[in-house]
Amino acid sequence: MPSLTMNMQTLANRIVAGDRRALSRAITLVESSREDHREQALELSEHLRHSPKHAIRIGLSGTPGVGKSTFIESFGMHLTALDLRVAVIAVDPSSVRSGGSILGDKTRMERLSRNKNAFIRPSPSQSHLGGIARRTREVVNICDAAGFDVILIETVGVGQSETIVAQISDLFALLLAPAGGDELQGVKRGIMEMADLILVNKADGDLVAAATRTCTDFTGAIRLLRKRPQDPDEYPKVLKVSAVQESGLVDAWEAMTNLIDWRKEHGFFAHTRREQAQFWFEEDVRQGLLAQLNAPKLEALMKKLGQDVINGTILPEKAAGMVLNEITQET
Amino acid sequence: MPSLTMNMQTLANRIVAGDRRALSRAITLVESSREDHREQALELSEHLRHSPKHAIRIGLSGTPGVGKSTFIESFGMHLTALDLRVAVIAVDPSSVRSGGSILGDKTRMERLSRNKNAFIRPSPSQSHLGGIARRTREVVNICDAAGFDVILIETVGVGQSETIVAQISDLFALLLAPAGGDELQGVKRGIMEMADLILVNKADGDLVAAATRTCTDFTGAIRLLRKRPQDPDEYPKVLKVSAVQESGLVDAWEAMTNLIDWRKEHGFFAHTRREQAQFWFEEDVRQGLLAQLNAPKLEALMKKLGQDVINGTILPEKAAGMVLNEITQET
Repeated sequence: MPSLTMNMQTLANRIVAGDRRALSRAITLVESSREDHREQALELSEHLRHSPKHAIRIGLSGTPGVGKSTFIESFGMHLTALDLRVAVIAVDPSSVRSGGSILGDKTRMERLSRNKNAFIRPSPSQSHLGGIARRTREVVNICDAAGFDVILIETVGVGQSETIVAQISDLFALLLAPAGGDELQGVKRGIMEMADLILVNKADGDLVAAATRTCTDFTGAIRLLRKRPQDPDEYPKVLKVSAVQESGLVDAWEAMTNLIDWRKEHGFFAHTRREQAQFWFEEDVRQGLLAQLNAPKLEALMKKLGQDVINGTILPEKAAGMVLNEITQET
Repeated sequence: MPSLTMNMQTLANRIVAGDRRALSRAITLVESSREDHREQALELSEHLRHSPKHAIRIGLSGTPGVGKSTFIESFGMHLTALDLRVAVIAVDPSSVRSGGSILGDKTRMERLSRNKNAFIRPSPSQSHLGGIARRTREVVNICDAAGFDVILIETVGVGQSETIVAQISDLFALLLAPAGGDELQGVKRGIMEMADLILVNKADGDLVAAATRTCTDFTGAIRLLRKRPQDPDEYPKVLKVSAVQESGLVDAWEAMTNLIDWRKEHGFFAHTRREQAQFWFEEDVRQGLLAQLNAPKLEALMKKLGQDVINGTILPEKAAGMVLNEITQET
């Protein structure tokens, strides 16, 4: 970890001025779990609170194999060609288990990582979902203060992380691969309902027909599942793209900006941001309370009693009472 | 509230012997929020823990207007005619707002409430979801110990209560009314995915064609949404019923028992019950921790800070830290 003795006001100023090293340093600070770093991070967030921000935040989910990295690279290159500054952030609660960042060593997005108008931040190894949520929000805010125009928040389709991403994003896009109707069920519960936009990738070569069919299947399904009354009739929208052939990217970006513009015009954009702030306030409180269970002694007790409950030797409510008593006595 | 000075072992014995007054008394005890009643209820649950139980627990959800009461009455009468003893329990977190029980004064199910093999328990007014979950589980266990063969756990389609019911039930059925395809989206997010069985009610008179179409629509949608690998291929199943004409009830019951039998035979029935016990242990602990927020002083603080967060005058994470500090200082 780099030296973090820098004054937070100075660090904030450098971030706003577009200093990439300052940005990286700030993110490292935010990702640290050390108590003093936490305080500094909060101070930094305070300094950045009133700095101008204009980025649109796009959540992007897709299970492994749909070509997410390739899409982000192509899409990111497309956006930078439009003179937009793009930041890519990953949310990956499973990175601890898989032994590394889903963004790997940036070789996944070679062109984009060398692009001076793009910033790719690999996801750190951290397993606590509450921590991930807070860190990701802070990283997004810092990137926003740093002047990026588009922040892509990437996640792999594991359910809970999508909820986090949706609550941080202005728009949520789901990337799919062409597939037969039977395979649609592979999309995790709840994720499809969050999507403002479904992008069927790999609409190239042999797969064009399958991609078209997948579009049709999902167009039907998503209309049943999710319709926000405030959005224009054609949303949620299903589009074909090919990251490899770089086709469909213009339409995808247009579908995103049109929806954002509509929501801004009708007040829903600001309204959603306010609701998200309220959500995270309450969620941070909840996570803080539940964090009491992370003490090693309590974890051991939970595990032991959980086994007793499964074996039927104790009632769930009685076991829960024992844990709660233990917590009350500790404090 | 009746006198509750009775010895809990005696009360347990009477319940097991089939004494209806003892059953009602026990449920009243369970529903009480008084501290001493809580302790008695836990003692009673302990006494009943090892008594024989064989009921199957069927969760049933449906939005107002689908004919849920009429269905439960017809279906309950059908089951009692098969010599089965049926208990009906309601879970209704909204009952406080609507000013009363969704089961009203039992006049909704006049025939069934007069049937000696049926027991209808109106839902009490209680708004705290954690409390409702615990109470409902305890009531289900007591009814099971009282020798009922089928326990119908009814809820109105408000989302979170369905999760509770699904985690208490062996099987989850969703009741729908015939509707055009556009109206399918009225089914709340996540509820359809829980369903083992969808029953399209009012398949009578003018509505037969619409009911058939609704069946077809949902058969497609539900297969995409939910397929438990352990279940037979034909589940989740969509069936037409008419509560008024009492048609389709034989098929509905057969679909339920076939699925239960399959799950029992393959070990999934017991496995699910164990998972549910584990879930409720952890959930009771979580609810207990979150209950710290119910103190009036903290509620006021949460409300004030929530408003500040919405107005953008404080960062969500900072506001959350203030609430958590307050809690630490209180204890």
